[in-house]
Amino acid sequence: MIELIHGGDIYSAHERGLEAVLDFSANINPLGMPDGVREALASGLGSCEAYPDPLCRALTAALSQSLSQPAERILCGNGASDLIYRLVQALCPKTALVLAPCFEEYEQALSSVGCTVRRHLLREEEDFRLTERILGDLTEEIDLFFLCNPNNPTGQTVDQGLLRRILQHCRERGIVLALDECFNDFLDNPEAHTMRDSLAQNDNLILFYAFTKMYAIPGLRLGYCLCADRGLLERMYHCASPWNVSAPAQLAGIQALREEDYRRRTAALIRSERAFLREGLAKLGCTVYGSHANYLFFRPHVPHLRERLEPRGILLRDCGNFKGLSGEFCRIAVRGRTDNEALLAAMGELT
Amino acid sequence: MIELIHGGDIYSAHERGLEAVLDFSANINPLGMPDGVREALASGLGSCEAYPDPLCRALTAALSQSLSQPAERILCGNGASDLIYRLVQALCPKTALVLAPCFEEYEQALSSVGCTVRRHLLREEEDFRLTERILGDLTEEIDLFFLCNPNNPTGQTVDQGLLRRILQHCRERGIVLALDECFNDFLDNPEAHTMRDSLAQNDNLILFYAFTKMYAIPGLRLGYCLCADRGLLERMYHCASPWNVSAPAQLAGIQALREEDYRRRTAALIRSERAFLREGLAKLGCTVYGSHANYLFFRPHVPHLRERLEPRGILLRDCGNFKGLSGEFCRIAVRGRTDNEALLAAMGELT
Repeated sequence: MIELIHGGDIYSAHERGLEAVLDFSANINPLGMPDGVREALASGLGSCEAYPDPLCRALTAALSQSLSQPAERILCGNGASDLIYRLVQALCPKTALVLAPCFEEYEQALSSVGCTVRRHLLREEEDFRLTERILGDLTEEIDLFFLCNPNNPTGQTVDQGLLRRILQHCRERGIVLALDECFNDFLDNPEAHTMRDSLAQNDNLILFYAFTKMYAIPGLRLGYCLCADRGLLERMYHCASPWNVSAPAQLAGIQALREEDYRRRTAALIRSERAFLREGLAKLGCTVYGSHANYLFFRPHVPHLRERLEPRGILLRDCGNFKGLSGEFCRIAVRGRTDNEALLAAMGELT
Repeated sequence: MIELIHGGDIYSAHERGLEAVLDFSANINPLGMPDGVREALASGLGSCEAYPDPLCRALTAALSQSLSQPAERILCGNGASDLIYRLVQALCPKTALVLAPCFEEYEQALSSVGCTVRRHLLREEEDFRLTERILGDLTEEIDLFFLCNPNNPTGQTVDQGLLRRILQHCRERGIVLALDECFNDFLDNPEAHTMRDSLAQNDNLILFYAFTKMYAIPGLRLGYCLCADRGLLERMYHCASPWNVSAPAQLAGIQALREEDYRRRTAALIRSERAFLREGLAKLGCTVYGSHANYLFFRPHVPHLRERLEPRGILLRDCGNFKGLSGEFCRIAVRGRTDNEALLAAMGELT
């Protein structure tokens, strides 16, 4: 049996008879797809009739300029998720370390190549923050360490000083540090948290990014990674079909990078709505942790919150299937004011 | 360095300064995308804003009905090519057998997991037909055999009696038979050549299909495979990101299956234009082999045909990089009459 454990599964909700679904379970930009991207897709449907560029040359050039990174450090994929699988397939690690709780897909990808997965448990009493304890778990036997900053589902960021020590620690022990910065865009000060500046000096660092979340195009699939080890990127390239990134996704990505105004509006909206939700949750008696990105992680005021909201057409992410957590924790995406009010109102009716 | 060896690489041609490209190098339906599919994509752009269904439920149900196959035998992928990589990753074969010449991607996928690849050489003096000699190469050490029917690039079909013997031979020796039927749609009598009816009795048989070629949507990426071994399909599912098939591709696939008239028009067009090209090539002094699908495989009347046509904006597939062939062989797609006439006229001017 194939088990579905991720947020954003509106299809299963539809199967259960839910029609008007307010989906707080997937962390997608509440502004929806930028108009410019929609227009690029609509006018670029003809691109479907030719094979996509296997090297994503135009998109890579646009990324290179936008990020001020050399093109040879960039590899595009069919979503960041595709690149996570390819990294694991290219490295075939024997032993890997992941955080708990953390995005479950790292472990799923690692399992697909028979890798032994060790978990570093984050502690509720430390607000699920990463601490120096992590250094003790980064031993010589570890081949690959998946770290997510800000972390999913907690939304906690990693202290930059600690992150630099982790990176050095990994380099000295031959550990590849796979740092997922997919939600970096949604932090109040993204530049202060990214490790892009450390790429040049650290061949063992690989960074992951998605277009999915910021540009609200998870259905289209587009992500990329950055790494100074060109050999590793080429091995990853060869672990999947050369046409893995669709032509419409390449077009959409190029347009998305031009959407400066949309990014500014997004930052303002997330900042204010996150504060609104945080306050609303606290008033209801929920305990909110971390939550610096476009989602909030909390211990609800009532049990069985997901099950009780679902009949009202409201989906949220019950974190019970995250390793290292019980079902008492939930994650919600930051959406627009009307939706956020509807959620808080529905939660307020539960006792 | 990443080397590009496949047809349809209009991007490299553009980089070399070619603008108006007549692309005979990729075997795509010359009718272009069906209008119904284009409309489904245009009106379904909103599907990009939600995660795709990881189980492709609606598309799988449509395929199940269209093919009269149980849904549990179907796995959809990001192009047939994606599924070929996933099969190899799921099986991790030690030794595999491929034909030469044959679609090069089987060997590329096999190399990505360190598999030893043996080649069965097809012979020009046998018109590159598969013969009983193949049985001698299907020994106990072989874990996986990739076979393509009709073969690419030759367009030769495999005799059905021989195919059944190969399947039985494989079953008795524990060999998985990966049978690529991606070009089956373009044969004059597809039903007479498919092995779909053998699935139920043969757990070791897996069949591959693409939407790419028939519906002219290679840029969108959509394919599927059929297999009675559900465990194998689930292992393949877990070898890639669960959202590998984009939402627009799922929509397009569902609509494509409804395009009966388009399929009829395609069959008629391919039949007549293939005959037109075959006759034209023969008149020029080319030797045509096999070529029962939507492409023709031939030894040109002049040397360096590809290089000499390219400055005229005409791309074709030089088969020099197919294992088991020299550059003296070429492959062209069947296109519409105007394009085909342009190609033959250009070829006629070369001596």
